[in-house]
Amino acid sequence: MGNSFGTLFRITTFGESHGPGLGVVVDGCPPRLALDVVAIQVELDRRRPGQSRLVSQRKEGDQVEILSGVLDGLTLGTPIGMLIRNQDARGKDYDDIARAYRPSHADYTYDAKYGIRAIAGGGRASARETAGRVAGGAIAQQLLAQHGVTIVAWVDEVAGIKATVDDAMIERAAVDTNDIRCPDTPVAQTMIERVERARKDGDSVGGVIRVVERGVPAGWGEPVFDKLEADLAKAMMSLPAVKGVENGSGFAGTLMSGSEHNDLFYKRADGVIGTRSNRSGGIQGGISNGEPITMRIAFKPTATIMRAQDTVDADGNPTVLEPKGRHDPCVLPRAVPIVEAMVALVLADHALRHQARAIPHH
Amino acid sequence: MGNSFGTLFRITTFGESHGPGLGVVVDGCPPRLALDVVAIQVELDRRRPGQSRLVSQRKEGDQVEILSGVLDGLTLGTPIGMLIRNQDARGKDYDDIARAYRPSHADYTYDAKYGIRAIAGGGRASARETAGRVAGGAIAQQLLAQHGVTIVAWVDEVAGIKATVDDAMIERAAVDTNDIRCPDTPVAQTMIERVERARKDGDSVGGVIRVVERGVPAGWGEPVFDKLEADLAKAMMSLPAVKGVENGSGFAGTLMSGSEHNDLFYKRADGVIGTRSNRSGGIQGGISNGEPITMRIAFKPTATIMRAQDTVDADGNPTVLEPKGRHDPCVLPRAVPIVEAMVALVLADHALRHQARAIPHH
Amino acid sequence: MGNSFGTLFRITTFGESHGPGLGVVVDGCPPRLALDVVAIQVELDRRRPGQSRLVSQRKEGDQVEILSGVLDGLTLGTPIGMLIRNQDARGKDYDDIARAYRPSHADYTYDAKYGIRAIAGGGRASARETAGRVAGGAIAQQLLAQHGVTIVAWVDEVAGIKATVDDAMIERAAVDTNDIRCPDTPVAQTMIERVERARKDGDSVGGVIRVVERGVPAGWGEPVFDKLEADLAKAMMSLPAVKGVENGSGFAGTLMSGSEHNDLFYKRADGVIGTRSNRSGGIQGGISNGEPITMRIAFKPTATIMRAQDTVDADGNPTVLEPKGRHDPCVLPRAVPIVEAMVALVLADHALRHQARAIPHH
Amino acid sequence: MGNSFGTLFRITTFGESHGPGLGVVVDGCPPRLALDVVAIQVELDRRRPGQSRLVSQRKEGDQVEILSGVLDGLTLGTPIGMLIRNQDARGKDYDDIARAYRPSHADYTYDAKYGIRAIAGGGRASARETAGRVAGGAIAQQLLAQHGVTIVAWVDEVAGIKATVDDAMIERAAVDTNDIRCPDTPVAQTMIERVERARKDGDSVGGVIRVVERGVPAGWGEPVFDKLEADLAKAMMSLPAVKGVENGSGFAGTLMSGSEHNDLFYKRADGVIGTRSNRSGGIQGGISNGEPITMRIAFKPTATIMRAQDTVDADGNPTVLEPKGRHDPCVLPRAVPIVEAMVALVLADHALRHQARAIPHH
Repeated sequence: MGNSFGTLFRITTFGESHGPGLGVVVDGCPPRLALDVVAIQVELDRRRPGQSRLVSQRKEGDQVEILSGVLDGLTLGTPIGMLIRNQDARGKDYDDIARAYRPSHADYTYDAKYGIRAIAGGGRASARETAGRVAGGAIAQQLLAQHGVTIVAWVDEVAGIKATVDDAMIERAAVDTNDIRCPDTPVAQTMIERVERARKDGDSVGGVIRVVERGVPAGWGEPVFDKLEADLAKAMMSLPAVKGVENGSGFAGTLMSGSEHNDLFYKRADGVIGTRSNRSGGIQGGISNGEPITMRIAFKPTATIMRAQDTVDADGNPTVLEPKGRHDPCVLPRAVPIVEAMVALVLADHALRHQARAIPHH
Repeated sequence: MGNSFGTLFRITTFGESHGPGLGVVVDGCPPRLALDVVAIQVELDRRRPGQSRLVSQRKEGDQVEILSGVLDGLTLGTPIGMLIRNQDARGKDYDDIARAYRPSHADYTYDAKYGIRAIAGGGRASARETAGRVAGGAIAQQLLAQHGVTIVAWVDEVAGIKATVDDAMIERAAVDTNDIRCPDTPVAQTMIERVERARKDGDSVGGVIRVVERGVPAGWGEPVFDKLEADLAKAMMSLPAVKGVENGSGFAGTLMSGSEHNDLFYKRADGVIGTRSNRSGGIQGGISNGEPITMRIAFKPTATIMRAQDTVDADGNPTVLEPKGRHDPCVLPRAVPIVEAMVALVLADHALRHQARAIPHH
Repeated sequence: MGNSFGTLFRITTFGESHGPGLGVVVDGCPPRLALDVVAIQVELDRRRPGQSRLVSQRKEGDQVEILSGVLDGLTLGTPIGMLIRNQDARGKDYDDIARAYRPSHADYTYDAKYGIRAIAGGGRASARETAGRVAGGAIAQQLLAQHGVTIVAWVDEVAGIKATVDDAMIERAAVDTNDIRCPDTPVAQTMIERVERARKDGDSVGGVIRVVERGVPAGWGEPVFDKLEADLAKAMMSLPAVKGVENGSGFAGTLMSGSEHNDLFYKRADGVIGTRSNRSGGIQGGISNGEPITMRIAFKPTATIMRAQDTVDADGNPTVLEPKGRHDPCVLPRAVPIVEAMVALVLADHALRHQARAIPHH
Repeated sequence: MGNSFGTLFRITTFGESHGPGLGVVVDGCPPRLALDVVAIQVELDRRRPGQSRLVSQRKEGDQVEILSGVLDGLTLGTPIGMLIRNQDARGKDYDDIARAYRPSHADYTYDAKYGIRAIAGGGRASARETAGRVAGGAIAQQLLAQHGVTIVAWVDEVAGIKATVDDAMIERAAVDTNDIRCPDTPVAQTMIERVERARKDGDSVGGVIRVVERGVPAGWGEPVFDKLEADLAKAMMSLPAVKGVENGSGFAGTLMSGSEHNDLFYKRADGVIGTRSNRSGGIQGGISNGEPITMRIAFKPTATIMRAQDTVDADGNPTVLEPKGRHDPCVLPRAVPIVEAMVALVLADHALRHQARAIPHH
């Protein structure tokens, strides 16, 4: 339970960090979609460890194999199975973890829940689990392209260092121009230096990712529980290390009065109804209003640090966890494609759900 | 689609603001739970309009009728239907809305999605919809009491005015001592004055609700998509006016280093493993760790204000929306029991999901 | 759990036989459907007890009240709540049942499962529960009419007495011309006499209902688990007293060779591909093929009989159940609209699921 | 959509007949179950083609690879991914099918639904799809063994030739003693001769499988829609070639009066309440009553025959389908483990659903 996401466009993922591999089954993808397998691999490559000094040095090719659901480049409407084999699994790095619960990791809670866990690499609790999401999300993005939807995420803050980015204009190419995935180049350099410093200190930093979805037509979202922002919030909070999420004005909006906060409607030059401001973040009453959908996502500093930490073992006895293995001093650059993937999965699902609703007239 | 919430402990709500009534069906409540119907009514009374000058003056008794699933004070294990009739439905106050889209309301998006809407009172998009959630959540709270779980929410910020509240100690009785539902009495008075001022100005304010769940055992939550914080975030973001949600350290946590943020494990005096700090907000890897679960929820200022606002009609023609009817200058006091209800629904569902997992040994 | 049916067009029912009432919430009905409330009532009247001497003499008006989701005769796209109050609840008739488990009823199994049950009238296990299904199914039928789908069920066998009916031509009006709901008039008379005899004997009879769906386009059904026949079979077997279900050739088909059984394709006069025979019963590989969908449903003889029966009480002690109260000597006439309702719910759901699949081309 | 089955113990399958492979993800299996991988392979071997002259001669090793969710022989509580590679994929045998719709196959309906299909081997519509079900069902059977549940299916009829088998005593070992999987040895020989004759004639035969589940405790099943027999019926009707299903007395029960059909309760020697007959087939009101659960499942004669058949091509033009490739003259022997697997999946799911319901007392 808990390893599927979505109602009509639905993924089910499986796989442990140091087991045979990671996989995903995409059920509900419409048939006859021209599927670009290279584009799936591109997203996996953006998520992969070892891309730069900023992130984990684990060596994983993360080559995706399509097992089903696609023929001659077209989707069949049947489930699309995808598999990514694990390669660089260093079980021995994790010997100590068997004894010492890593602070702010899921070692203790997995033991509490399941009474067993795959210790090496954190097992299913490893962020490596997200590879399946990214592969599934890459397909969702190709479906959404048919609807004219584009999704761009970027690193907007690292340890309080803030970028200035125009969400109406930002393109993914600009995001990928540097290792930190922040399109504000001078700020990106400061961020990179901050991450480097954390890495040298054996410490880690957190930050904020912003994501914008443009081209979503007015009308997607299913009140009252499956509001678009509700499903997006769940998608974001299901990611490792996420501790907060905002849509539109978010927490800052609580400081405004209603007369300041309200988004006034007007008729745009193209005749479509728009809003003069977008504090609603593209969603009103749980339904997209045609404006860009905007979100901010808070990532805590990576729990794995290269410092000795006090903790306990499974019996509750005090012990010290000595640093070992590899770590990401800042997960945000690798989280950018993961955020985009999850957003795409939510939108693709809601596109299908909305489509289901039309009444024929016989 | 979209009107059910939960997997095993599952509610389905129905009803428009100015239709015959609001209702909820609770499916999955275990049998033989001694159900306190008065306690359900108490929660509805806490949510009801007209409690004080701070909130809408609509007159609604909000008396709940149990239609099924309960016999002689005990649940039967069958679905519990509940109905709350609408009484004070002033359709005529809403004549203008038929023509003018209210800014930052769901009038436009409902039209875009459904091509039709119940104009009076916002129909299904009205916060009145949450009555069904509160009735269902009240049952969930009674189930959770059997697990030793208590849930307390309170108004922690109004328009930037911040309370100081100890989430380890706060009780619901303290919250309900004033109209704003902030247990920090002096700050509550300042908040009340701020809301009064907004009301006199025909304006509105937003703020932040905090909620804490104590007594949740380690082990609830279903990785990787139905993580406890993910389902809680969805529950919160499905509420009207919510624009942001945090678990534990939230956005503030992004400013810390990993070495500062990590929650160190230790053996508590009672022999149970605990953490010395609680930046994780009671959840690690999507699973409760036995510490209090903490969240902050951002509510935007009420969209309904008593001021003229520029907008368009359904044809996109410019018009001015003149203020009319009743409004909540600040929704937060009434949102407190709604937040508690939604949290309870998530936890009750996860309690059942976790319970399903045991292996018998024949 | 277990009180909802359908994925996109989804009903949730509630209510006990002798509680305040029975209800249903229909979620997922498309908006702007012109809803004929009288037609809903007509279906409930066809299911109602007391229609003729053949069925239970319980007096129930079964008047439906629409609680939500409809405005000025049009669906809103929001959940449609409907309520049917119970009137003739004779609790005292059921005193003995508290002590003696009725043979082939659900008294014992409800106790085994829930440890509690609403004894009067069988509570939730009563066939009275199906009123909510019929109300929901009536809406589904109105939606399906927009697709050009018609559904007709009839009593085809009673206690081995078999009718001859052409499923290509049968209309609902012909079914309703007699109390037994068998359109083969001479055979119907024999059936009626057989039921009368059972009634006089204090006994009961079973039989077979056939149902045909015409106008279903090729393409509905979701392999591999939600095949159209699979969902139809589940719908039928979820009805009280049903012990068997067939699609197309059913059990008789097992006696044929493949060369006899195969349905050969040909181009029909209207240019559409059809089959020369219909042993497939309108479904191939889980997907409708455009031919009429045909099913046969076996109903056991009513468990309630007016004879003394050996049984045990809740402690397992031997006792004799004396006959009391009212009973249906043959449930089939009243089951006809229930079968139609369940078939409609399955088809409406699959219509929406199929519709969700189209790819836009931007 | 449609490729997952179950609510809490849930499988998702993928794979085409002649694609890279077939797979299944089992989500919801409890942790710490000692998993016997050999036993999974045994079930796959029982389903495999090429076991005897009676079935298809396709050469497939059907070796299962566990991709996740298991460590050192124990389940982790995380999803169990399993993969079976295809080996003997003779695409060229299927050239004609591209042009001619095979009678009573899913070629036409897949085209009608998806507008595309994997022609070779029937793609996803091939019974080869059931390999994933068998692997998942094998795990479900190991979980059910912990509950003391055993499941045995056998071929009870072939082309009208009927076996005599005592469902209270039958063991799986007796079933597997001959190629037709009928434990009534003399009748089995007649059946085998009948299948041989069909094979020589280039024709095919159908029949009936019976299945019994012993040891299911009273109390499993979720009224009113997810009744145990309803979910079992869906499971059976989702299998290729199934056209009918019965629980307990089935269609034969419609010929009995209520006084003959009712199962009288009594206290068994072990003090447990039982029934003197079992026309209910182990289920009353949708809930197991502790008696053996019995079902009969009708399989049509295999649609693939080695004879020329009139049909049309995708444009509706008349053509003749010439026989080619391999075929099963009788699918029933291979369907036995598939039926057992599907029954196990339903029961495992209901075991967990029932377990979720207990109320703790704090």
